[in-house]
Amino acid sequence: MKQIQPRIYKGTRDFLPEDMRKRNYVLSIIKEIFGIYGFEPLETPSIELWDTLSGKYGDEADRLTYRFTDRGNREVGLRYDLTVPLSRLIANYPQIPKPFKRYQIQPVWRADKPQKGRFREFYQCDVDIVGSPSVLADAEIIAITNDILKKLNFQKYKIRLNSRKILSGIREISGARREEEILICRALDKIDKIGISGVRRQLRDYKISSNSVESIMEIILFEGTSEEQLSRLKDLFTSSKVGLEGIEEMSTLLLYLKEYQISKEILFFDLYLARGLDYYTGPIFETNVEEPKIGSITGGGRYDNLIGLFSGNDQPATGTTIGLERIITVMDELNLFPNNLSTEVQVLVTVFDESTLPYSIRISNRLRNAGIKTDLYSGKSKLRGQFGLANDKKIPIVIIAGPDEKEKNEVNVKLMKSGEQFKVSLIDLIRKVQSLLVE
Amino acid sequence: MKQIQPRIYKGTRDFLPEDMRKRNYVLSIIKEIFGIYGFEPLETPSIELWDTLSGKYGDEADRLTYRFTDRGNREVGLRYDLTVPLSRLIANYPQIPKPFKRYQIQPVWRADKPQKGRFREFYQCDVDIVGSPSVLADAEIIAITNDILKKLNFQKYKIRLNSRKILSGIREISGARREEEILICRALDKIDKIGISGVRRQLRDYKISSNSVESIMEIILFEGTSEEQLSRLKDLFTSSKVGLEGIEEMSTLLLYLKEYQISKEILFFDLYLARGLDYYTGPIFETNVEEPKIGSITGGGRYDNLIGLFSGNDQPATGTTIGLERIITVMDELNLFPNNLSTEVQVLVTVFDESTLPYSIRISNRLRNAGIKTDLYSGKSKLRGQFGLANDKKIPIVIIAGPDEKEKNEVNVKLMKSGEQFKVSLIDLIRKVQSLLVE
Repeated sequence: MKQIQPRIYKGTRDFLPEDMRKRNYVLSIIKEIFGIYGFEPLETPSIELWDTLSGKYGDEADRLTYRFTDRGNREVGLRYDLTVPLSRLIANYPQIPKPFKRYQIQPVWRADKPQKGRFREFYQCDVDIVGSPSVLADAEIIAITNDILKKLNFQKYKIRLNSRKILSGIREISGARREEEILICRALDKIDKIGISGVRRQLRDYKISSNSVESIMEIILFEGTSEEQLSRLKDLFTSSKVGLEGIEEMSTLLLYLKEYQISKEILFFDLYLARGLDYYTGPIFETNVEEPKIGSITGGGRYDNLIGLFSGNDQPATGTTIGLERIITVMDELNLFPNNLSTEVQVLVTVFDESTLPYSIRISNRLRNAGIKTDLYSGKSKLRGQFGLANDKKIPIVIIAGPDEKEKNEVNVKLMKSGEQFKVSLIDLIRKVQSLLVE
Repeated sequence: MKQIQPRIYKGTRDFLPEDMRKRNYVLSIIKEIFGIYGFEPLETPSIELWDTLSGKYGDEADRLTYRFTDRGNREVGLRYDLTVPLSRLIANYPQIPKPFKRYQIQPVWRADKPQKGRFREFYQCDVDIVGSPSVLADAEIIAITNDILKKLNFQKYKIRLNSRKILSGIREISGARREEEILICRALDKIDKIGISGVRRQLRDYKISSNSVESIMEIILFEGTSEEQLSRLKDLFTSSKVGLEGIEEMSTLLLYLKEYQISKEILFFDLYLARGLDYYTGPIFETNVEEPKIGSITGGGRYDNLIGLFSGNDQPATGTTIGLERIITVMDELNLFPNNLSTEVQVLVTVFDESTLPYSIRISNRLRNAGIKTDLYSGKSKLRGQFGLANDKKIPIVIIAGPDEKEKNEVNVKLMKSGEQFKVSLIDLIRKVQSLLVE
């Protein structure tokens, strides 16, 4: 075997223990809130048949899906998100009691050019309710989002709401054609990056008539409270059934959300919000932070027709992605992680020499049987190097047992922070270590 | 978009909530023991460069690795195991303090024909110590394996030990050539499936001289206690340096393992054990259960040269895979899962009608704020259907609040098991539900 350069595939990452501790901290809070809202875990395969993945998200997504043929010449791909696999699964298991509430935390892949903050492999963390046409389900999803961010100590964030039905209404009264609707959404979705004039240009590039473009822009640029905006839209939508439906739903959604007591500074109706994916059909929502500038940290919406593509009959569904990777980035920048996320190892049992090694094993066994997280030194270094390891790994307690201690059935305990050192009998060791750890 | 058959890619699986509960139960115990032994979590990417993956495990494994080119024409593959990615990572981060103790729980992929119990995607759960040449590290890995199986309530299992150095010694004194050593290991690795005569046939098929074959088989077929076998081998190995080294290490390993108090009925030296992968260099170990017949449920060993392929200088390492999937299969068949692994949802709050819906939200909020796992019904069914859902999902407590209850600020609590139903004021609700849940 020849020597190989240890290269990682660009756009993917190794997560070392210090990274994993942060990820696990965030995930444990997310899972806790999911559980409290009555959601249960689910997983689907990484590889799906190409037929399952293709044509669900839009052309760009199709191009960015990892696609290959397996040894049996089957066309397959790595999942692009967790929503399409969920939809396929729901069609596979029609007997699942509805509404079905699941969360799913797994990696997804994008055959994209890697950039700062954009990866070829990253985790998505999705929560969805399948089988409920009620905006109560949308309200629950939004309330979860808010609860998770609060629990993670986020202070400044905005949850923006809109509805694909309202955007449909705007398209209808603008005179643009039905096929142009998704183009309008895609253009609007870029507003944070390209600004209002950029959207206008993009719409024209999409060959949407300039009358329609101006009509759309005029409506979008409405200002006012959620109530004012909705009431103005209602007046405009007299000829748009879908538009009026959207207004009605949005008003009910905002009414329900009041019960969840989400502050008005956090939650509001926002006509700029469009979301880029093809499959949304009703309310859509997104969360943004002001600092750092990183785009949305959660995003989702209702997709009532996607499951029907697999099952033949439609099944209403709504849900959101919680952007685990961006949340971690923001928490890092804003210093929102607790200080004590260092090593979990509580005690290092050193090895004096070969003759006392069995005694060191015995000490470790005792500590471990008491549930104390214990590292038994197995390397080549003398005591000095072993202390170095405890130092590097920030292990708070080190135990030393040479031939004298072994003889007397005792050990030396060293506290790494203070440097303090004292002898304890083997019998008292557990009690002593436990009391040191709660200090 | 056209309608699509909801097909899963063969050899992969969906894990529904009832599957996930079992998986999470096993994983929580495994992670707890890993933590107690001082191991920390780590993850690596699913996709690695083909150069990283190829030529590490043997020809068959190379063939079974999912391989494709990305959009930039780079040759990549899906990881085949977690050991090679760890080795690549260690070379990438030479500054990691050693011994480095990590665990890693992630899926791996095999482009294999799916069969009962053999999947194209499955989780591996690995625990390794990098940077320790001492058999104490091997002993720790074996002790963890034993602790995990005990904690999972396994009764009848055997941990088998051997050493690639001892197998080298046997090869040397058999007169077989050095290049034939891995073939001898691969043939022996199949002994459970093809029996002793099958191994003999396989060795001849590999064109190993019949003198060597007979000499190997004679030694392998030794019977006796671990001590008797080792002492006989020691006598035979006078001319084999590596063989004697293997005997010496195995004796020390068995001595250390005594301190971990693993019963003699569980742990023993077994010359039949060879392991199929190319990269092992020292002690190897495997765990088998008698029932059901499923092959090994854990397996690993020392691989002192693998990391050197990436870093240029060797780094001793040892570890094992805990066969999560097989462990779950065995626990299912032997009924080792606790009975209470049903839904985690504790309360279903029903919705009487549109007018009382905000009151139902308020009730859910209270329960959720108290940390009670609460489903708020968001579907289309009347109360009867809502009770049906509680029944299907085995949710123990159902709360009903119609206009009368809303008026009086109270709720109806129904216990699904007994059918008992009573009224509680909103103020007393949390205390009442909490006391019902601990009953």
